[in-house]
Amino acid sequence: MAFGEVDGYPEGSLFESRDEVRVAGLHRHLVKGIAGRPDEGADAIVLNQGYEDDVDYGDLVIYTGEGGNDSSTGRQIADQKLTAGNAALVTSELNEYPIRVIRGYKLKSPYAPQSGYRYDGLYFVKSHWTETGKSGFEIIRFELNKFNGHQLPPHSNQNLPLGNDNPEVRPSVVNKVVRDRAVTRSIKEMYDDKCQVCGIQLACEGGNYSEGAHIKPISKVHGGADKLKNILCLCPNHHAQFDRGGFCISDDFSLIGIEGRLNVHPEHQIEISNLQYHRNLFPSLLRDG
Amino acid sequence: MAFGEVDGYPEGSLFESRDEVRVAGLHRHLVKGIAGRPDEGADAIVLNQGYEDDVDYGDLVIYTGEGGNDSSTGRQIADQKLTAGNAALVTSELNEYPIRVIRGYKLKSPYAPQSGYRYDGLYFVKSHWTETGKSGFEIIRFELNKFNGHQLPPHSNQNLPLGNDNPEVRPSVVNKVVRDRAVTRSIKEMYDDKCQVCGIQLACEGGNYSEGAHIKPISKVHGGADKLKNILCLCPNHHAQFDRGGFCISDDFSLIGIEGRLNVHPEHQIEISNLQYHRNLFPSLLRDG
Repeated sequence: MAFGEVDGYPEGSLFESRDEVRVAGLHRHLVKGIAGRPDEGADAIVLNQGYEDDVDYGDLVIYTGEGGNDSSTGRQIADQKLTAGNAALVTSELNEYPIRVIRGYKLKSPYAPQSGYRYDGLYFVKSHWTETGKSGFEIIRFELNKFNGHQLPPHSNQNLPLGNDNPEVRPSVVNKVVRDRAVTRSIKEMYDDKCQVCGIQLACEGGNYSEGAHIKPISKVHGGADKLKNILCLCPNHHAQFDRGGFCISDDFSLIGIEGRLNVHPEHQIEISNLQYHRNLFPSLLRDG
Repeated sequence: MAFGEVDGYPEGSLFESRDEVRVAGLHRHLVKGIAGRPDEGADAIVLNQGYEDDVDYGDLVIYTGEGGNDSSTGRQIADQKLTAGNAALVTSELNEYPIRVIRGYKLKSPYAPQSGYRYDGLYFVKSHWTETGKSGFEIIRFELNKFNGHQLPPHSNQNLPLGNDNPEVRPSVVNKVVRDRAVTRSIKEMYDDKCQVCGIQLACEGGNYSEGAHIKPISKVHGGADKLKNILCLCPNHHAQFDRGGFCISDDFSLIGIEGRLNVHPEHQIEISNLQYHRNLFPSLLRDG
C-alpha cells in the first residue's frame, strides 16, 4: 500500500473514470470500493452510491463495509464479515493510517461531483462497528473523519520514514462532543481512579490517572448520554480495548472477550441497555466467545 | 472548589481589583496566584507578572508554579516543590478540571488588560514539568490550553452531576502538532504492537493496538523531533504514565519509578539525550527513587 497524498494530484483533482483514478495511483481497483489488504491496511476508498446505508456529512462519512450484497442488484443478501477490505479498514483504524477518499458521480450526497470522480483528501477511520442494516442483514460501518489542516506527504511501506525534526504546529478544526467534565470527575472519584476491569491505579507524578469511558458512544452517530449511567472508570488500556471491540460486558457484569468481571460501586447505576448497545456493536465477540 | 463558569460573569468580564474578582466568586484569594487544594484540584489562576519565566501566547499559557520566591523582591531563591497550589494544578491536570484564568494589568503580555483584571475563560492543564528557571533554581511549569468552543456550566463538588442526555457536538479549533503518521506506523510495526515496557499486545476487534509515544515532547514548548530516535512503542497505560511523570528511563534503559527495563529493538536507535531531557522534566523520580 502507499499511504497519503500522491504527487501531482492535490485535493479536488477531477477524473473522468475509475481507470483514470487508478492510473493516477489514487486507488488501485477499477470496481471495488476499498483498496487494501487485511494485514497492511487500506489506503483508499471510493464513495459512489454502493450501499443504501452510507451517510455523507462531508468531513464525516459513515461508510458501509463490503460483502454480502448481490452484485447485479447491489442489494444486501447476507451478513458482512470482518475480512478482506473491511479488515483492511480496521487495520488502518488501529494504526491511524490516512485513507484517500474519492467521491463518484453516483453518490447520493450533496458532496458528490456532478460527473466523474473527485479526490477529496485524506480521512482517518475513527471507529467501526456492526449493525443491522436496512436490509435486515449485519453490516459493518466505519466512521471516517477528514484530516484537516494540511496535506500529508506521500509514503510507501518500503523504507523507514525519516519524520521531522521540527514538526509543525497548525490550527485545525475538530468536531468535539461537548462533554461534561464534572460527570467524568465524579466517576473517577467514585472509583478512586481504579479501573473497573483490572483494578489498576495508574500512578503519575502528583496523583493517579484514570479515564471516564462511555459505554454507548457519545458521538453524533450513536447518540449515547454523557451521564453516570453510561460511563465507566477505566485505565487507558481497557478504555482503548473497550472502544475498539476488544471486550464487551454482559448484563451480569461478567466480561466477554477477556477474563473477569466488572467491579461496580453500589451507587453506580449502570443502564443495562447501554451495555446491550455496546455488545451489539461488536457481535463477533459473542459468536467467538 | 467550584469548577467552571460563574453565573453572571462571562468571559471578558472586567474587575477593578482582586477583591472584586474574589467577591464575584472567580478566585478565592486576594494575593495568591493559584486557587486550589492538592486533593481537590485548582479551579482558578491569576496571571499578573509574578514569575519571570511565564509565557503568554493567549490560548496557550506557560505558567510557573508557586513557591521558592522572595515575597518582597519576587526573585526565585529556592526550588519549587510539588505541594500546595502546584499539587492542586497537577490534580486538575490528571482529572481534566477546567481552570478560570484571570489576567491582571501587571502581566507583561500583549494579552494583559490595560488596568484591573479580566476573566479570560476556561483553560485546561495539558502538562506539567520541572525545569531550571532563569534564576538557576528548579521551577515547576504548567502548559495551559484554552478550552474553545463554549462556556461550561458551573459546577461544585457538592452533588453528583447530572450530565447530558444529548451532549452537543461543536466545532472547535485546536492547535495540533502535525505528526508524521508513517513514523508512528513504523515503530508499531517494528515492535508488532508490543509495549516496550510491559510487552502487552492489546487485542482489539480486527487487530492489536499500541501507541507511538514521543520521549522529548513534540509540543511547541519542548520542540522534540517526530522521528524514530524520539519515539517509543507503548501501551496506552505506559504512554499515559510516561507523559505524566509516572516513570522515566535511564541511559541503560532500566526504568526509574517502576520496575523493569525498556525492551529495545536492535534497529531502533533511541537518542539518549532525549531520555535525559525527559528525566529532567520529572526530577522527583530521581530524588525519591
